[in-house]
Parts: sequence; structure tokens; C-alpha cells
Amino acid sequence: MKPTRLLCAVLVLLCSDISARALEESSFIHGTPAADGILLVDGPEIAPLIVDPNDHPGVIRAAKDLGADITRVSDATPEWLADWPHRDSAIVVGTLGKSRFIDELVREGRIDVGEIRGRWEAYGIFAVSHPTATLAHALVIVGSDKRGTIFGAYTLSEQLGVSPWYWWADVPPRRRAAIYAGSETRIVDAPAVKYRGIFLNDEAPALAGWAREKFGGFNRHFYEKLFELMLRLKANYLWPAMWSPSAFNEDDPANPALADEFGIVMGTSHHEPMLRSQQEWRRHGVGEWDYRANAPGLRDFWTKGIRRNKDFESLITLGMRGDGDRSIPGGRNLELMEQVIADQRTILRQELGKPLPEIPQVWALYKEVQEYYDHGLVVPDDVTLLFCDDNFGHLRRLPSVADRSRAGGAGIYYHFDYFGRPRSYMWLNTVPLAKIWTQMRRAHHAGADRIWIVNVGDLKPLEFPTEFFLTLAWSPQRWPLARRDAYARRWATREFGPAHADEIARLVRESTALNERKKPEYLSPETYSLIHYREAERVLEEWRSLVASAEKISAELPPASRDAFFQLVSYPIQASAIAHELHITVGRNRLYAAQGRSATNAQGQKARDLFRAGNELARTYNEGLGNGKWRHIMDQPWVGLQTAGSTNGILSTEWRSPGRSTLPAVTEIDVPAAAELAVAVEGNPAAWAVVTPMNFTSLAGFEGKRIPTLPTMAPHGSGSRWLDVFNRGLAPFSYRISASEPWVSVTPATGDIQTEQRVEVQIDWAAAPAGNHAPTLTIAGPAGQSIVVHVPIFKPAAAAEREARGFVESDGYISIDATGFDPPEEKERWEVLSGYGRTGASVTSPLGAKPAESIRESSPLEYPVTFFSAGSVTVNLEISPGLAVRGKELRCAVAFDDTEPQMLTVPTDEAAHYAGLIDSVMRLQSTHEIPKAGPRRLRIWLLDPEIILQKIVVETGEVRPSYLGPPQSHRADDQRRPGN
Amino acid sequence: MKPTRLLCAVLVLLCSDISARALEESSFIHGTPAADGILLVDGPEIAPLIVDPNDHPGVIRAAKDLGADITRVSDATPEWLADWPHRDSAIVVGTLGKSRFIDELVREGRIDVGEIRGRWEAYGIFAVSHPTATLAHALVIVGSDKRGTIFGAYTLSEQLGVSPWYWWADVPPRRRAAIYAGSETRIVDAPAVKYRGIFLNDEAPALAGWAREKFGGFNRHFYEKLFELMLRLKANYLWPAMWSPSAFNEDDPANPALADEFGIVMGTSHHEPMLRSQQEWRRHGVGEWDYRANAPGLRDFWTKGIRRNKDFESLITLGMRGDGDRSIPGGRNLELMEQVIADQRTILRQELGKPLPEIPQVWALYKEVQEYYDHGLVVPDDVTLLFCDDNFGHLRRLPSVADRSRAGGAGIYYHFDYFGRPRSYMWLNTVPLAKIWTQMRRAHHAGADRIWIVNVGDLKPLEFPTEFFLTLAWSPQRWPLARRDAYARRWATREFGPAHADEIARLVRESTALNERKKPEYLSPETYSLIHYREAERVLEEWRSLVASAEKISAELPPASRDAFFQLVSYPIQASAIAHELHITVGRNRLYAAQGRSATNAQGQKARDLFRAGNELARTYNEGLGNGKWRHIMDQPWVGLQTAGSTNGILSTEWRSPGRSTLPAVTEIDVPAAAELAVAVEGNPAAWAVVTPMNFTSLAGFEGKRIPTLPTMAPHGSGSRWLDVFNRGLAPFSYRISASEPWVSVTPATGDIQTEQRVEVQIDWAAAPAGNHAPTLTIAGPAGQSIVVHVPIFKPAAAAEREARGFVESDGYISIDATGFDPPEEKERWEVLSGYGRTGASVTSPLGAKPAESIRESSPLEYPVTFFSAGSVTVNLEISPGLAVRGKELRCAVAFDDTEPQMLTVPTDEAAHYAGLIDSVMRLQSTHEIPKAGPRRLRIWLLDPEIILQKIVVETGEVRPSYLGPPQSHRADDQRRPGN
Repeated sequence: MKPTRLLCAVLVLLCSDISARALEESSFIHGTPAADGILLVDGPEIAPLIVDPNDHPGVIRAAKDLGADITRVSDATPEWLADWPHRDSAIVVGTLGKSRFIDELVREGRIDVGEIRGRWEAYGIFAVSHPTATLAHALVIVGSDKRGTIFGAYTLSEQLGVSPWYWWADVPPRRRAAIYAGSETRIVDAPAVKYRGIFLNDEAPALAGWAREKFGGFNRHFYEKLFELMLRLKANYLWPAMWSPSAFNEDDPANPALADEFGIVMGTSHHEPMLRSQQEWRRHGVGEWDYRANAPGLRDFWTKGIRRNKDFESLITLGMRGDGDRSIPGGRNLELMEQVIADQRTILRQELGKPLPEIPQVWALYKEVQEYYDHGLVVPDDVTLLFCDDNFGHLRRLPSVADRSRAGGAGIYYHFDYFGRPRSYMWLNTVPLAKIWTQMRRAHHAGADRIWIVNVGDLKPLEFPTEFFLTLAWSPQRWPLARRDAYARRWATREFGPAHADEIARLVRESTALNERKKPEYLSPETYSLIHYREAERVLEEWRSLVASAEKISAELPPASRDAFFQLVSYPIQASAIAHELHITVGRNRLYAAQGRSATNAQGQKARDLFRAGNELARTYNEGLGNGKWRHIMDQPWVGLQTAGSTNGILSTEWRSPGRSTLPAVTEIDVPAAAELAVAVEGNPAAWAVVTPMNFTSLAGFEGKRIPTLPTMAPHGSGSRWLDVFNRGLAPFSYRISASEPWVSVTPATGDIQTEQRVEVQIDWAAAPAGNHAPTLTIAGPAGQSIVVHVPIFKPAAAAEREARGFVESDGYISIDATGFDPPEEKERWEVLSGYGRTGASVTSPLGAKPAESIRESSPLEYPVTFFSAGSVTVNLEISPGLAVRGKELRCAVAFDDTEPQMLTVPTDEAAHYAGLIDSVMRLQSTHEIPKAGPRRLRIWLLDPEIILQKIVVETGEVRPSYLGPPQSHRADDQRRPGN
Repeated sequence: MKPTRLLCAVLVLLCSDISARALEESSFIHGTPAADGILLVDGPEIAPLIVDPNDHPGVIRAAKDLGADITRVSDATPEWLADWPHRDSAIVVGTLGKSRFIDELVREGRIDVGEIRGRWEAYGIFAVSHPTATLAHALVIVGSDKRGTIFGAYTLSEQLGVSPWYWWADVPPRRRAAIYAGSETRIVDAPAVKYRGIFLNDEAPALAGWAREKFGGFNRHFYEKLFELMLRLKANYLWPAMWSPSAFNEDDPANPALADEFGIVMGTSHHEPMLRSQQEWRRHGVGEWDYRANAPGLRDFWTKGIRRNKDFESLITLGMRGDGDRSIPGGRNLELMEQVIADQRTILRQELGKPLPEIPQVWALYKEVQEYYDHGLVVPDDVTLLFCDDNFGHLRRLPSVADRSRAGGAGIYYHFDYFGRPRSYMWLNTVPLAKIWTQMRRAHHAGADRIWIVNVGDLKPLEFPTEFFLTLAWSPQRWPLARRDAYARRWATREFGPAHADEIARLVRESTALNERKKPEYLSPETYSLIHYREAERVLEEWRSLVASAEKISAELPPASRDAFFQLVSYPIQASAIAHELHITVGRNRLYAAQGRSATNAQGQKARDLFRAGNELARTYNEGLGNGKWRHIMDQPWVGLQTAGSTNGILSTEWRSPGRSTLPAVTEIDVPAAAELAVAVEGNPAAWAVVTPMNFTSLAGFEGKRIPTLPTMAPHGSGSRWLDVFNRGLAPFSYRISASEPWVSVTPATGDIQTEQRVEVQIDWAAAPAGNHAPTLTIAGPAGQSIVVHVPIFKPAAAAEREARGFVESDGYISIDATGFDPPEEKERWEVLSGYGRTGASVTSPLGAKPAESIRESSPLEYPVTFFSAGSVTVNLEISPGLAVRGKELRCAVAFDDTEPQMLTVPTDEAAHYAGLIDSVMRLQSTHEIPKAGPRRLRIWLLDPEIILQKIVVETGEVRPSYLGPPQSHRADDQRRPGN
């Protein structure tokens, strides 16, 4: 095996080639002859394809795809030969032991297949000089088995410039006049994960509507497209679409035979045992779906399924859940479940006539089924245990050491798409590469290497994470942290060429990261704060910047690439940007209505416009590409599905799906003609007006006299505060703001207002006195109306200022991104996961780290902080949602300086976990006494390696409600890390 | 006093004259000469006005109004004489002891004033032949005192055809070419209630904006209009507008002198003691508004107020609340409050220099102040105790027998408008005449006859109840139950003539009754059920019918009357109808969105249109009458004020008022092009569709397989059930419905659907079999889509049917309007209050009834009912919100047949009472066992006479959520009372 390892090392080095047009391999295809290179196409000269007609039909089919791919890139059509030709060059494709051409070359010692022989799905690509007397050069693709050969052929296709997504995402083949292969030998050993699969799920209305429109349903025509894609992605395992009324084996009886011919191993989803779909039970089931009551009926049903598919390669799901992917009624019953599995295995043995260890079987520990496992259910040793994530991409449980020694081994069922509690997500990609990488690498490290299968929903627009998942499954070792971030760039280069690859990689990475913070389907008009920390403004700016970049790239790309760019990159960005702006606009509409802003109704109209723009964008996807090629594929409702269905207090649960995209409700107000001055200030949803003829500030006495007051400003704070001067009437007016102190400035201090004007308030800290002060602004408007706003400030004394180190208290908090720790002595002590978590990067323990037995034996993360106040503070740790993957609560600890650390555990109850999933973060709180102002060290122990720390917020005063929390505080000793 | 009583009886008889143009008096003004009649105007002949210049200035002023009123009706301008003329006829106006003309007539024995002399505000109108040698006839108006004379003069004005509202509601004077007075003598004795007043309150933005626009504020110009109106309405007491920044005595120093001249007794609101307004404290107060901390400062402030107004007639408010009409801080303190009152009285004695019993004083038992009284606070005997309602028109406490013997007596502070917890109502009239009548008559019966004052908000559009309240205050005895309902007709006749009087009276009565069910400001899109009992449809139909009638009348009225009709009748009806339709439309918009109806967006647009129409209607009031005469008077926000102000989870309470009318938020959905069949059924917010390519009914398996099922139908049930066949796409389609049984019919069974079609389902009960059955309907739509709906029926066996008596069980309930009781032997045992309560009529004990000591000594209401099922049933009594007016919980009891009655008490906690106020009903529940099916007698004891029973709902199955509850059940033995 040593040569392979060496080869991998070489590949790693080569992969820095940003012009690479294949994900994993360095390029060995050139447009001009190289030393010992093999001509594949050059003008009229075209290397023929040599394939043994007795090779596996799936191999012959893949080789034909290879021939078609050569045509796709060059217009040349290779001859198809079943004998050695008299030629200068040829391409030989064949399977060890199945292709007489290959066997002959092996026999003759022209190729050395020692490293792949007997391996699972391994292959080699050899440049052979004079393989026969009549042939000068041959590019020889050899597979250790059927799929090995197929994967070899598709490897060449990718190298030629045919993306696996050439049809599924309209990526244009890279056109070349001449094609030469290099002379290097490539050996690709067996994949790290034996079964690498996808699950088409939650497939209505989008994928199902599209399949019906395009193919007449989920039939052979649909599946041959899917199988080809899967093989190009080197996947080998499929759970087919199964939402009512689909039943893979019955809807088109050619389906299972076709899968077998292609080389796809078929299964059924985690809750559909014995190769029979839920729909088949609805069609043919006799009696109840209840093993207590109806074992004979169920056994008969299952027996027929196994018998039907016995000639095809399968990986058989065992066990059972309740009907319709729900819990079994009547509560947990270990004996019953063991009986079910035993009886299912009896059927397998009888029907398939071979020993059980030779029959691939899987038992999925999904949702409550994991509890059977936790409570000691005995699963036969040869059955693969399929561990599952929490439906949101976080592992629920890792295989134990004992699990790893099981003959059946272990696998993972993962999600990019989900339909169920606490909330569904079925639209865009919301799982960042860094998260998939972190979680699946941990799973693999713990021995989950038999099956990786991922729920890909409608498949589109989840192309990017799907391919990454399958790529990682082939060899997690090939994608260490150092190389991980190159993946997106290599992918972008392959699909769109090198010119924009860096920027496209950034677009995909950042848009997914933003979508992970809050999945776009979970947005509400209340999500991002309109009044605190300029949160909504910052979020909108992030999206606007991505949209602008995507639009620029789209304009610069060759027209042939634009459809692919739309599908793979820009639609998700534009769509999510619209979703974000829509919700924030609706939030403004509602806030403005409560404040009586004359701009209220325009925000309502804008919300309707954005809603329609979002629908139009989906229609462009459906109708505007390739003459309606993707009709219905973007039919997934994208907004409002789960919140609009309430009337008369009853939620219309039937309509969770499929429903319609629904605008978050917008309001409007009646705006009078006369101008009316009003003010809203940062940090407060209220507004103040001088209502003629009532003095409203005075009227507010009914509610307690509240005077408009900005949050306290400080030198290390936000730099500027805002207030909105606005109109509650239709007629415009002029305003003028005067400050009570010369060191308070406002911009703009005067102006004309039709609807509203944001005014920035700043302090000249050099001129301002130390301590607490409250200067005022007087805002004068029409007809003698005026409103006074208080501007409290706090300027620390010069001595305290000089002493400050690290993150500095201001505005009632110290906020620290997890990555802001002081570098530890032990360099590899922590792993920074860029692209994971709501702050853009998280901190965790490196792969393979063990849980710490105690705080003493563990070293903490250390953050320098400075307080300007003393007293009780609350520390909030924001961590990624995590579960007790070893069956024990995850622990961390917090202390300041040398005080006694406080131990904290991550809650494991469903409510807390669900809340964490919806917000992509969980919070742990501890309270500490700070005896006096000055610098301190905040120490955080991540005692379990699964803890992923995103952010720390130390509350010293009133931290105001916002989704993302206060932005990072100013760092006194590092001017490169300003608060914002 | 006997003559007066006799006269009253005569008046009662005469009041059936529907052409009467005065509320209380029969007409004594004619257009032609009658026997002994007195010419007032006929062509060039005009009776002069004879007034002693030494009479009270207020009398002279009122007499001038009388002269102007003569001009208003006839264009004639009476001469103003200060001596007896040589004439055929004259009008003499004067006060006993102040007018030499009157005193001369008395001295000469020409008029007999024995019945009014020395009485409070009494007056007589005498037709005198040859009062002097030179004068043939005189109509002599004599008052016992200043206001007596004034009220006499305005009585003649009203008789002439000048409505008290001629200016305040633009009621056109009745034009006459000739005017003659009859020869009858009219003596009107002192009013039953000594001080009859109004409180202008919650006056921004409407009344305040209007007053500023029209008069420059609440100054002498405003108040002279108001005082004149009050005197025409025979009111004598005012709490002036006091919302910031108004202060009656300071805003225009002429205000108090003007009031005194007019004859208006001034006070200050219940929480503004010693004739000083809240605003004056804000302007001049030194120290805290806290008697513990700042007694000298407060005493000084109060002393100055009393000193300032000492020359004017006042009724002085004592005591104190916290600043801004809130509770005193620091909790209840009886000694402190007694000290406050003692000190205030010391100031009164010192400043006014007369004995305290001669100084009218009042102490208001408002909100928590009543607790002082309940806890034994000693109020000096000469101070009037002002009991208050619960802000929603229900008495909180009645004067005790001991209170009645107090020298200061007792009074009532009542509300037609309210700003505060639990919710404000400040727009339309929502207090039916029947409620005012019931509550205030009880108050009077209990001895509350010293003060009646009512919060009239902006005054407009509360003209009708305001006048009724004041009219009733003059003499509750004149408006017994038998005559009560004639009031509205007489009022309508006076304002608009006899032709439409009945219908106008109905419009006012019914629209107010509908507004009382749920005050229009409390409507929400969830109020009226869109799916149960056809509730929303019935409510809309009620309003549509009122609007149609109002429009018809408006078109038929003389143009000169239309502005008045708009203000007094049609604006409130149209506005409330719009508010109701708006909320129901928004509810439909939201429900439809959840169901994916293609009609969703049209409902959203309709909601916006209705919102704008409502705003436009208010603008028509403000701008479209009398050249902008009423600008701002309809500025009160009418929708959405209290529910729209939430964003980011924070309710913007500052904006409770004054805000802006705000549309309840509406949504829209994305509707695809293809036709898609769907069905919604009565009783269920869900909908069922055949979603291509998913079979949705089957998909619903995820939520439990629910098949669309109508509520059970029965022969005594609703007669028809509905289902909606609708489109979830844009393209139209055709449908066809077929029934599984010939006795099930649907209308229309076929049709074309663009958006939706309501289909009625009926049963041919003669053909249907007895017992429970569940036929089906199959609805076939486009492209082979079809949906099956279940139609469960229950037909009682023929024997049970024959046995049925009274109200019959059906659909899980027996619903009975309270008035459906069997007539008791004792005819006067119960009083039916038509127009009171949500069912349109309620049942209570007659005036003067005493609380029953026990069930045994009380006789129950009895309702015949028939059950078709046995088992446990729940009886819901719906009663009008009521309070422990005697300090003890109100009780009632329920039993079936001769079983042991269950005693129930009306909850007195604030939460239950508040909920009752918002819904205008409170519910008492009891559970009973019905041993077997068949007829029963439901017996209900109203043990306390204050209990007002509206409705009874006996739950035998699932009563579905609705606002008004199920409509009255079918009555088996009375075909005239069908269920609907």
C-alpha cells in the first residue's frame, strides 16, 4: 500500500494548482503533446475506445459515456473497438478479470495492478507504450471491480473537462481542439467509506414536479440520469424518492434492474425495511403495520420484497418504525424489535440462499430507534449500525470502541434537508462545508466508515455540499484542515475556470455560512434586531455585497456558463438575500406602523415587491433556463410556510407542505396630511412625537415619563449612535438639531424631511470630560415642534484607560469571538474552524482529542479582558448545538483569573436542543464576581472535545435583545481588531 | 305635587304621537291656529319677547337664543321688549323673583306657580289670556330659578323645531310659515337628579384637534357652544377637557366666568381635586404630588384654586389619587386620605366663608378609591359619594341604605368612552340605550340621585346616548320599560321627521347592539369564526342590511338633513360595518393563505381597500360636511391601534394613543399557473388538495390521516352544511360532485371555478334512514383529481322524535336565548331587556327585586329541552358582566328537573371581569348528568337581581370555538322559533 500513500502525498502537493479542473486529482490532461503523452484527440486523429463486450454492462455503459464526453469536449467521436487496433493511440477501459484486454496487459506485465487487485472499487490509469505490437500508446483504465472501472472512466471524463454536473447543472464541457494524456500512472485505492450514498427525500413539490414534467415520474428515464450523476460523483448507494405516491420498485419495474446494471446499490430509507417502500405497504399491506398484531402479514410483505429484488445488488434496511416515519406505537419494546430483526434475517437467509454475513444489512438508529440501542438492544454483529445526526448536521452518537470491532461496522445518516420537528428546511444549502467536514471527519475517526448516506432533499440546489460529502467519503484523509479550504476553489475552477474561482469559492462559502446562522426558512420579521447593534443593517449589507459580487461575475462569465452559475452560485445568493431583505422590510413595516412613520406604507409595498421578486426569481429558475428544463425544480415554498397557517387560533398543520410561499403579513397606516415631527432612537422600539395639539411626551406620563435616550456612548464603544428624525404626516418639513455641548456632533444636523432621516451622533472624546455625563440634543421641526434627546456618555479616567488590556468593557458588555484567545504555548492545542458557526469561525479540540477527566488536567482558552466596573457579571458561552455523542453530557468550565472554575454542561433536553437547532447556537451561562475594575483573564475549558465554541458575551449591564448578540468589543492592545 | 303626576300620565299617553318633535313633551306648537292658541309667528305678525333686563344674565342669554331659534324656524325676528306691549300676543320669559313681568303675573294671579316655587330647576309654561290690558295672549315661561327659566326657554325652542343638536350635529331647524302655541299649561317639576353632567375626556386627537382648528383651543368660543348645547339638553354640570395641555380655568380666564353666566356648574374630574386641573399642577406645582411628603405645597396649590373660582357656581371634587389618574403610591392609607379630605374642607370653609353643608362637594369612588370606602373611610356627611361604573357601563357598587340618608347623598360616574386598562374604547357608541336604562334606573332606585355624570369622550359621535343619559337623569320615572323603546323613535322623529323614524330608531338601536357585542376597536381577524356556525357570514349580513337601509334613507331624506343623518346615524353604521368586514376579510386572507387558495391575494387587496374606505369615510366626516366644519373630529384611530405595535417582541406601549389607524396585517401567496382542485369544509380550518404529483390526502398521513368530514347533520340542525371547492392555481377548472346516497344533495353540483365556489349540502330527511350514517361526496376536478368528503348524519328514531319538546339537541349542543323560558305563573316575575346583551335581549329581575336568601324561596326560569343522548353535559350560562354591587358575589343556580340545584357565583377577580368586558359576556359553567335521552326541564335561578342572563348553551358534544356561540336550537313545539 505504500505507493498509494506516496501518490496521495504527491497529489496533495499538486492540488495547489488553481487551474486544476478536477476536484481530487491533479490535471493529467493537456491541450498539447507532452513528453510521453498520449494523443486522445488532435484534429482528425482520434484515439479509439477499446472495451471487451464481455465486461460488465455497467462498464460498457460508462465507457460509452466516456466516448460521449470526448465528443462533448472536442466534437470528435472515438471509434468503439472490440479488438486491438493498428493505431498510434487508444483508450482501453476494462475490469480486472472481466476484460480480455486488461487481463492480457496484466499477463504481459504491461501494467502492474498489484495495488488494486481484490480491492473494493479501486482503479488505476496507466499510460502504456506499445501495449501491443500494433498500438503505439494506450491510456489504460483498469478497475478492480465493476465500479472501480466505472469510476476510472469518469475520472478521465472529469479530467477531460466534463463536470459531473454537466447535465444536472448545465456546466458547459471545456472545449479543446486537441487532447493529450500525460504519462503518469494513477492508482486510486479503495474508498475510505464502502457505501457512499444519497437519499432523495421531501421531494415534493420540487423534484417530484420536475420529474413528472420531464420524465413522466420517478421512472427509468429519471433514474438513468440520476445514476449517471451518482457514478460521476463516485457514489454507489441510493435511497430512492419515497414520498407518496412513489415506490421505486413498482413505479417502473425497470428501475431496480437499471440500478443494478449501472452499478448502483439500492436500499430503502431508514424506516422502510426489507427493500419495500412505505407506499407498497399502503398499496398491498394486509392488516396493521404493527408487529405485535400482524407479524404474519408483515413477514409476507417483506418476503415478497426480498424475493423480488434478489438478483440485484442491495444493502437491506432492517428493523421498523411506526407507519409514516413515526415512532412505533405502544412505547419501546426491546424484545419485539429483536424479534422483528431476527425474523427479517430469517427471510433474508431463506430468500437469498446465502450466509447472512454475505448479505449487506443496515439498521438505522434514527430518532427514537437510537434509544433501543442505548437500552441495550442486541444487533447481530454482521449488521451495519447506521448512526444518525440530529437532522441538522450534528452527530447524535459516535460508534463506541466495541461498535468498531463489529463485522457489520458502522455508518452515518446525515442531513442537508429535513422535513419534521422542530422545523423543516428544504430549500437552499444551509450546511457549510466546514461543518460537514468537522462532523463527518469525527464520525470517520470514530470508525463510521461502512456507510455514509446523506439526505439531499430535491438534490438541487444542494449540488455543492452533496459532492463535497461524497468526495470526503472517498477519502477523509485527503482533505486535512490545511487543504480543506482549497476544495471550494478547486470546485469553482472546475465549473467556471480559474479567473473567478477565488471569488466564487468565497460566495459559496459565505452565503452558506450566513444561511447557517439562521436558515432562511426560519427567518421572521423579528429575527434580526432593527434597533440594537445595527444588526439588521449589517446583515443586509453582507447579503448586498454577495449579490453585487455574484452579479459582477455573472456578467463577466462566458454566456455558456451563466445558467450553471445561476444554479450553482447566484440563485441561492439572490434568493436568500431577498428572503433576508423581505423579513427585515416586514419588520420595519410593523415597527414603523407602531411609530406612526409616514414611511410605513412604502415599506409594506417594498415587502410585497420583494416577495414577488423572490417568486419571480424561482420562476426564472423553473422557466428561464434551457427552455424550461428545470420547470418545477424551484417549486419549494421559500417563505412563510410555517407561520402563516393560523387563524381563529388553530394552526392548519395539514398545510405544512406542500404549501405556497407566503408573505409575512404587512400592515399599513393612515397618514394625515400635516407634517409631524417625531424621533426614534437607537436601542428603543418606541418613538416620540409632538402631537398637535397634545404634547405627546407629556401624555406618555400615562405610561411613565420616558424621555428619548440613546444607549450610553463610550470611547471603546460603537463609535456612533443613530437616531431617526421622521415625519408622521405627508407634508415635508425641515429640521435642525442643536447639541448642548460642543463635543457632541450630529450628521446631518439640518435637513428637509419627506419621510425620514437617519442622523449619526458622535462624541469628540478628546474634548469630552471623564466620567458620566448626559448632554442633550434638541431637534426642532415644523410649527414650533421640538423634541429633546438625551445622549449619556461614559469616559473612563485616564489611568483606567492606560491600564486597559484585551477586550474592553463598553455599553454593558464585553463581546469576544471565540477565536480571540491568546495563543497557547502548545501550538496544536486548539483547532480554529473557519466557516463554522455564526461568527464565521469557531474553536474546538483537534481531531482525536480525548475528553478531559478533570479541569486540572486540561488547559483552558484564555482571553484578556478589561472591566471599567466591578460587581456581578454573567458569562454567556455560545456553542454550536452539540449532543452527548458518547452518552454523557458535554462539559466546559469558566473562571476569571485564578478563581474557582464553574463547571457547565450542555443541556440535553429536547426543548433546549430544538431551540439550539433553530438558532444554530446554544448558550451556557455562569455568574461571576468581579471584585474591582481593571484587566482580568477569562479562562474557558472545553473539557469535551466535541464542544465547539463560537462566541463569549460577558454581561456587565443591560445586553439588549438581538439575534447575533453584540458585535466583538474593542481590543485595547490590538488596533487591528476594532469593535464595530 | 299631584298635578304634576297627573300631567306626567297625560304626557305618557300623548307620547305615542309619532310625529312628536320633542323628546319628553307632547307637542304644543302647531302650524295653524288652534282653540285658545297663541300666535307666535304668522306672516308679518310676530310675538315679541318680553324679558326683564334685571333677570339673570344667563336667562337673558337663553331668551335671546329662543329669539334666534324663532328666526331659525321662520325667518321672523321677534322684537325684544322690556315692557308690556300693545299686541295680540307675546312671549314672556322670566325667573320667579327676578323678573318683574313674572312677578306681576303671579301677583295678579294670572299664573299659578305654586308647584314650582322653591323647587330646583323647575319651570312652567303657561298660556295666559289677557295677561295685561294691552296684551291679548302671552306664552309665559317661568323658572323657579335661573336654570329653570333657561330650561323652559329651550323647551320651547325644541318644540318650535330646533333640535338641541342643530349646531352640534347640523340638524336642520323645522321650517314653518306660521307658529301657534297651544293653550295647555305645562309644569315641569325639579329633575330627579340634581346635577346632570358630562365629562369631555380622552379628547385627543379628535375633539382637541377640532377645537384648536375651529376655535383656537378649549377657550370661551368653544365652551359657549358647549354650554348652550348642555343647557338645551338640560344638563347643568361639566367636567371640562383636561388632557395635557388643557387647563380650563387657565387656558382662557373667561372660561369659568362664562360657565357661571350660562348657568353651568363647574367641577373637575374625579381625580382632580379642589377645582384645579392636573395640568395646573404640572405648571405650578411645587414639590411632589404626595400628601405624605408635601402637604403644605398641595394645600397651597388647592387654596389658590378655590380662591380663584370662589365667585362661580361649582361642585368641588375632594380627595386625591396619584399623579396622572393613577393609584396613590405607597398603598392604601385611610388616615392619610381622611386627613386630605379634612384639610381640603378646611380650605373650603376658609376661602368660601360659608358653612360646609352649603358648599357642594363630591368624592369619587373611582377604581381603587372605592376600596377606601369599602374599608371604612369616613366621608363627611355633606359630601356626595360618587359611585362609579366599571368603565364599561356596569355599576360597581350601589349606595347602601345608610348612604341614602347622608345629607350629601350619592351619585354615579358613568362611561360611554374610556381610555385605560384592560382596553380603551374611544370611537363609536357601543353602549345600548337598554343598558344605560337598566343600569342607571337601578342606580337611581338605590338612591344615586345627587349627581349623574357621564364620560362622553369627544362628545361626537356619542350624541344619542349622551342625550338619553341626560333625559333619563331628569326623570327616570318618565321612561318605564313600556315607554323606553319609544325614546329612539321620538328622537328620530325630532331630528328627521316621522317618515323614517321607525327605521332610523331601529338602525341606531341595532347598530349599537351589534357594537356592544364586541366593541369595534376590539375586533380582530380572529373574533368571528370563519368556519363555525356561519358566524362571520351572519355578522356581515347584519351589517350589510343596516348599511343598505341607512343608504336608502339617506337618499330619501331632504338634502338639508343629510349631514345630520350622516353624523347621527349613518357614519357610525358605515364605519362599523367597514371595521367588521375589514377584520373578517383579513381573517379570510390569512385562512386562505394557509389553505393556498388562489383567492388569497384578492382578499388581501380587499382588506386594503376596506381600510382605505374606512379612512376615507372618516375624512368625509372631517372635510366633507359644512365646508370642513368637523375637521379633525373623526381623527380617532379606528382600527389596529392596540395590536400592531409589536416588533422584536417589544410592545410599543407609548403609542397606545394617539396613534394611527392601522391595518391588521395581511399576507399574500404565490399562486402557480396550473389549476389545482382543493376543498375546505365547514368546521375545519384545514383544506384538502390533490397536489400533483403528490397525493396530498395521503401525505397528510404525516399528521394523522384526516379525511375531510362535515360536522354531523341532523333534522333539527342547521339545515344545510357548506363546503368550499376552490382553486390553488390560476387556470380555471370545472368540477362535478356526486353523492353516494340519493338523499344527499349538493348545490351547485357542477360548475366552473376560477377561484372558489361555496357548495351547500342538504339531506332529504324523509328519505334518510334513522340512526348514524356517513354518506360521501366525491368532488372531481381537473386532470383526474378528486377528493372525497364525508357527510355524517344522525336521524333520531321516530319515537324519540315524537316525544321531543322545547329546545332540541343537535350537533353536540342545545343553545337557548335567555328569553326562551316558559312563561311563569307570576307574570311580573321576570323582566325581558330587549336590546341588552349579545343575543339582542336578556332576562333579569324586575326593578326593586331583592336578593333571594336561598334557592328554596326563589322561583327559577324554566326551559324545556330534549336530549337525544344521555351522559354528562355542561351548562354554560352567559350573563352580562356584573359586579358585586352590594359587596357580595352574585349568585345563580342550575338544575335539570328536580335534581339538586348547583350554586354558581360570578367571579369577581379582575382577570375574569376584564375578559368579560372585552367580550361583553361572562360564562358560568356547571356539569350535570342526564340519565337518559328524552325531554327535560332546565331550571335556572337568578338569585341576585343584578344578574342579567343572555344565553344558555348546554354542551352534549363538541361545541366549536366561535365568538357568539352556537345559534339558538330548534324548538320542537314552536315552529315560529326555528333554529337558524
